[in-house]
Amino acid sequence: MTSPPIPGKRKTKWPVAVLGATGAVGQMFVRLLVDHPWFEIVELAASERSAGKKYSDATRWLEGAPPPTAIQNRRVIACDPGVISAPIVFSALDAVVAGEVEMAFAKAGKFVLSNAKNFRMEPDVPLVIPEVNGDHLALIECQRNRRGWSGAIVTNANCSATVAAVALAPLHQKFGIRQLFLSTMQAVSGAGYPGVPSLDILGNVIPYIADEEPKLEREVLKLLGTYADGEVTSAGFKVSAHTNRVPVEHGHTICMTIGFEDKPSPEAAIETMRSWEGLASTAGLPTRPKHPLVVSDAPDRPQPRRDVNAGDGMTVTVGRVRRDAILDLRLVALGHNMIRGAAGGSVLNAELLASTGGLDPT
Amino acid sequence: MTSPPIPGKRKTKWPVAVLGATGAVGQMFVRLLVDHPWFEIVELAASERSAGKKYSDATRWLEGAPPPTAIQNRRVIACDPGVISAPIVFSALDAVVAGEVEMAFAKAGKFVLSNAKNFRMEPDVPLVIPEVNGDHLALIECQRNRRGWSGAIVTNANCSATVAAVALAPLHQKFGIRQLFLSTMQAVSGAGYPGVPSLDILGNVIPYIADEEPKLEREVLKLLGTYADGEVTSAGFKVSAHTNRVPVEHGHTICMTIGFEDKPSPEAAIETMRSWEGLASTAGLPTRPKHPLVVSDAPDRPQPRRDVNAGDGMTVTVGRVRRDAILDLRLVALGHNMIRGAAGGSVLNAELLASTGGLDPT
Amino acid sequence: MTSPPIPGKRKTKWPVAVLGATGAVGQMFVRLLVDHPWFEIVELAASERSAGKKYSDATRWLEGAPPPTAIQNRRVIACDPGVISAPIVFSALDAVVAGEVEMAFAKAGKFVLSNAKNFRMEPDVPLVIPEVNGDHLALIECQRNRRGWSGAIVTNANCSATVAAVALAPLHQKFGIRQLFLSTMQAVSGAGYPGVPSLDILGNVIPYIADEEPKLEREVLKLLGTYADGEVTSAGFKVSAHTNRVPVEHGHTICMTIGFEDKPSPEAAIETMRSWEGLASTAGLPTRPKHPLVVSDAPDRPQPRRDVNAGDGMTVTVGRVRRDAILDLRLVALGHNMIRGAAGGSVLNAELLASTGGLDPT
Amino acid sequence: MTSPPIPGKRKTKWPVAVLGATGAVGQMFVRLLVDHPWFEIVELAASERSAGKKYSDATRWLEGAPPPTAIQNRRVIACDPGVISAPIVFSALDAVVAGEVEMAFAKAGKFVLSNAKNFRMEPDVPLVIPEVNGDHLALIECQRNRRGWSGAIVTNANCSATVAAVALAPLHQKFGIRQLFLSTMQAVSGAGYPGVPSLDILGNVIPYIADEEPKLEREVLKLLGTYADGEVTSAGFKVSAHTNRVPVEHGHTICMTIGFEDKPSPEAAIETMRSWEGLASTAGLPTRPKHPLVVSDAPDRPQPRRDVNAGDGMTVTVGRVRRDAILDLRLVALGHNMIRGAAGGSVLNAELLASTGGLDPT
Repeated sequence: MTSPPIPGKRKTKWPVAVLGATGAVGQMFVRLLVDHPWFEIVELAASERSAGKKYSDATRWLEGAPPPTAIQNRRVIACDPGVISAPIVFSALDAVVAGEVEMAFAKAGKFVLSNAKNFRMEPDVPLVIPEVNGDHLALIECQRNRRGWSGAIVTNANCSATVAAVALAPLHQKFGIRQLFLSTMQAVSGAGYPGVPSLDILGNVIPYIADEEPKLEREVLKLLGTYADGEVTSAGFKVSAHTNRVPVEHGHTICMTIGFEDKPSPEAAIETMRSWEGLASTAGLPTRPKHPLVVSDAPDRPQPRRDVNAGDGMTVTVGRVRRDAILDLRLVALGHNMIRGAAGGSVLNAELLASTGGLDPT
Repeated sequence: MTSPPIPGKRKTKWPVAVLGATGAVGQMFVRLLVDHPWFEIVELAASERSAGKKYSDATRWLEGAPPPTAIQNRRVIACDPGVISAPIVFSALDAVVAGEVEMAFAKAGKFVLSNAKNFRMEPDVPLVIPEVNGDHLALIECQRNRRGWSGAIVTNANCSATVAAVALAPLHQKFGIRQLFLSTMQAVSGAGYPGVPSLDILGNVIPYIADEEPKLEREVLKLLGTYADGEVTSAGFKVSAHTNRVPVEHGHTICMTIGFEDKPSPEAAIETMRSWEGLASTAGLPTRPKHPLVVSDAPDRPQPRRDVNAGDGMTVTVGRVRRDAILDLRLVALGHNMIRGAAGGSVLNAELLASTGGLDPT
Repeated sequence: MTSPPIPGKRKTKWPVAVLGATGAVGQMFVRLLVDHPWFEIVELAASERSAGKKYSDATRWLEGAPPPTAIQNRRVIACDPGVISAPIVFSALDAVVAGEVEMAFAKAGKFVLSNAKNFRMEPDVPLVIPEVNGDHLALIECQRNRRGWSGAIVTNANCSATVAAVALAPLHQKFGIRQLFLSTMQAVSGAGYPGVPSLDILGNVIPYIADEEPKLEREVLKLLGTYADGEVTSAGFKVSAHTNRVPVEHGHTICMTIGFEDKPSPEAAIETMRSWEGLASTAGLPTRPKHPLVVSDAPDRPQPRRDVNAGDGMTVTVGRVRRDAILDLRLVALGHNMIRGAAGGSVLNAELLASTGGLDPT
Repeated sequence: MTSPPIPGKRKTKWPVAVLGATGAVGQMFVRLLVDHPWFEIVELAASERSAGKKYSDATRWLEGAPPPTAIQNRRVIACDPGVISAPIVFSALDAVVAGEVEMAFAKAGKFVLSNAKNFRMEPDVPLVIPEVNGDHLALIECQRNRRGWSGAIVTNANCSATVAAVALAPLHQKFGIRQLFLSTMQAVSGAGYPGVPSLDILGNVIPYIADEEPKLEREVLKLLGTYADGEVTSAGFKVSAHTNRVPVEHGHTICMTIGFEDKPSPEAAIETMRSWEGLASTAGLPTRPKHPLVVSDAPDRPQPRRDVNAGDGMTVTVGRVRRDAILDLRLVALGHNMIRGAAGGSVLNAELLASTGGLDPT
């Protein structure tokens, strides 16, 4: 497959930095960016503890082929806008520090693509899944105006919220969701590294993930909300979630029961999901999968181990679409929490911005 | 702990047989019956393939200390009422054969305590969790009258339905359930042995269990229904279930979201569950746990590996009782699918019958 | 990467069939052959039970993207040389039937590339890992002469034996092994599907795999043996194995302790393994990995989940090369049991034959 | 079962303290001591971070029924001999601090039963498994003389070394071991809590445990060594180990290959292990299992999940005793790393001391 050309008149790739590059999500950013056709990692930043070390010494590489030697040998630097030259930064920072640091970068004129929760629900901060609500990026202008920043913060959503929103977007757009019950079975990688101790999860289920239910409930509504005149109006339906941790490496599985304004049959819902192509302007972006949403006919799918890597981890797989005895439909959705639900989501956000001129100097 | 005396004027234990004794549930019956204060295993029966073999040769013993030598050396016999002398039989038969075989035993005057699904929803067959609806055993009389049997069939419920019903019984009794959403995470032992292939479930979730959702939905309603005048009236509320298989050995975890007629606060619900003691006549039965239902205050319980053996596998543990944004309450319940949800349930049914004279010759 | 051209003067791919195509190894053959540059699947064969069905209906597809529609819709046929037109067959047959069936195919003039154990130890049947002992294919001529077959049987080795032999080949060639102790930790996929019941292996270790220790012990010696004058002389050193099943999906890990004739230091052993390139004539074969053997410097590698897919599952990874207190060296080796250790091994055998004219009509 | 009476003329239980009481091994000490017939927990000590908190607040209780309310409400105190009144302390301290702290307690006249590695190999410190080498406790006198302590330190061995030594003791005593190869598959609980991250071990094997191989190799020799005239002479045979972490909760499985001076047949070895009763003076101690060592006849045992709780976690199970092609015998041993291999071992050490007057004031 030939790579799409760099948008606009650029001759060279955009230089980018990764903040929090040593953690699990930071490593995933590095994996997705090392061969990226539009972006080039020029800086890797992390906490004071890692700063000054070679990236390979500061990082316990978790998965996949280790990065190329040039990346491995790069010195980790501090998460300080004064020492980072790249105009675009991907942030895998922990929420404890992300608030202050990301703001400092945005103030300093950097474009921050963040996986942290801190700014997601700010009214002037886009919370974006490109195929679903890429138009919400228009909030950037309000953000800059209101805050006086020359940079900006754009966030990807919580991993479970992302999987749910991709599955629900076409249904909500066509049939109008009224009520939504979710029950998740989430992979351990969602908790980062070292994350969940094996003694807690081997052969076990933990029916609780701190702060996850409120995040899932509120972010789905913003993701499926409507942008107009400088603000996003929440989708406004009722949401209720159970979130659970299960002994799975990657992939969040979500059982959903849904009530609609305009009640679709299972067949109509399947047809709607299958024909959905997401925001037209995302077509052809390097990280966008051919099918953001796939519906399986198998009676027992999706399954994390078998479906998590669909579309290189960017496709959400839905299955078991069936009538519900109380509301209208039941279905199960699955997506890769580390790719679509974290690093891949922010890379795709950056690509959409790049392709629409949003990263060009103002 | 001293064992409770055998009820009535009996001097000796009741002789019992186990049908399907070589399978996973059959083995659990054997485990629970080998040292039982009221029952004594006199016969072990299984399929033609096993008949004639020593029990230890016919059985791949799955768990726990192997049975005593006397049991191990017993010859397995056929599931034929003509060759089984015991008046009481515990049936762990597969549904494929249970229908005909259990009926033959009941006709032949045997008391059949069945774990199979075949007769559970028959209007004249008791589907019983003693603490919840032990009074439904009164259906036995109708059953005998209607069918002209001198024996009888009494069933325990599906494993998930059992866990749900124990958790819900006090709430339904006091506040009246209107709507119930369930999403289960079920242990592999629920599928028997060999059951779920490891290639299907290691590090995976299977969001489907054949025929489980309808069983769960309908059995909960019968369990929480009301007996009067020779029939059980269904609890009649609306139920909707997702059922999932997870890589857990024993213990079904169920996330529930509940709407009530008379909306309780979480505190009132917890207080109601904690003060519930179940049907009074079950107190003191050998297999009845001190607390059929326990509510945990920990934010992340119940967990299968840590709570499944509460009350020797007969206690259901509930946790995370909290308000719901759409209906009234959310909570998580957990119980041992092989003990409370299968063999232990039928043994307790037999004990309740024994203690009330129901096993005495008519 | 451009595909290597089909060897010789062929203009079209070789037509091939897969025997036992519905099982776990059979599926892997299909995966590896669907886009193969030299071979084209023209027939899928399996047991009577599957014959006549569409491949997709006869198969529970275990892993990876399902095969293309053309394959899915193909009718499964019987494993009968009379109805199979392809001159080359890959056999994933169970040992129970492989003996007779494979012989019938060889008699009928077919080239049988077999994963079954039946003929591996026959003196006139090549047991081959191309990089290690590709020259043993010369046995084919003796086989044909002796048996009067126009076809032939070529076998790949047991999965554990393969991993061990790839790791040991360069060391044995240079330093001469005298004694070898192995202790394996083998993935569940090695037992096929349904294979190991989850109740047996979740959170467990089974320190026994039927018939595995003798297979491992004897096959390593044949693999590392020497071909001359129409026969293979066993490597002849002493071998002793423990084989264990662990809850891992793919990848057999083997701890080895080795005594040599000519005792190498760990550094010399590592250098020898790193500079080893395997049989020269295998270079450039489509399935041959760039590095058949990789030595990791990390203190805690190889690990199945992290290293099993090295070289698309064809690379064996070695680590922890260190001195031994009793013999000379200890090390750990890991390889993909389903690819290098099964289907991929036989495909590479076929490629080596193809590239050297061995598949051309005689 | 009636409890054995407190030895000697004591009317009351010995007051004991647990150091490092909040960790995984500390919790196990608490579990084993709460209902102990001879010892009574009077103090729980841990790091500064926990000191001052209620035990239930300072501890994430990992497993089993939580301790009684009296224990839960006890305030954790510092690991300081000045504030601890109990004359006997069980130490579950981390090796980083155990050295200094345990010495301070011994100097202050306390009896320290330690699970830490720090003093295990000191020539004057007993490293004891009562049934195997309880006579090594005689080193206490030398220790006191040499160090001028009124207290003493007695250690239990590394968890793997303990399992190996119990299995090997009768064989070494009768046939004299010359060479020993071990390959372990160790449970995650051996790494404490939080210990092994789930992302490292789910569906994986880690063929490395820091510092474990040397500990296992040297401790086995001391455990099987001979006490005479104030010193222990190492067993002196050659040992070589591979140690691996596997996704198992509790129970270390060890494959062993053994060469003997006086070569036994498998039958003779089994008979020797079965008739072994361990040091006679341990019979009847409260924590001593009826059979310290059990030999299984099943072809595929021992297995951690099925055998780890034999003898309440104090019995080591051996299986697969068979001839070896290079040395003499191969076998597999399994034991509970947290009970026999850690807390239970030290409690039994204390019981042996108590029963022989060793804990009485001098």
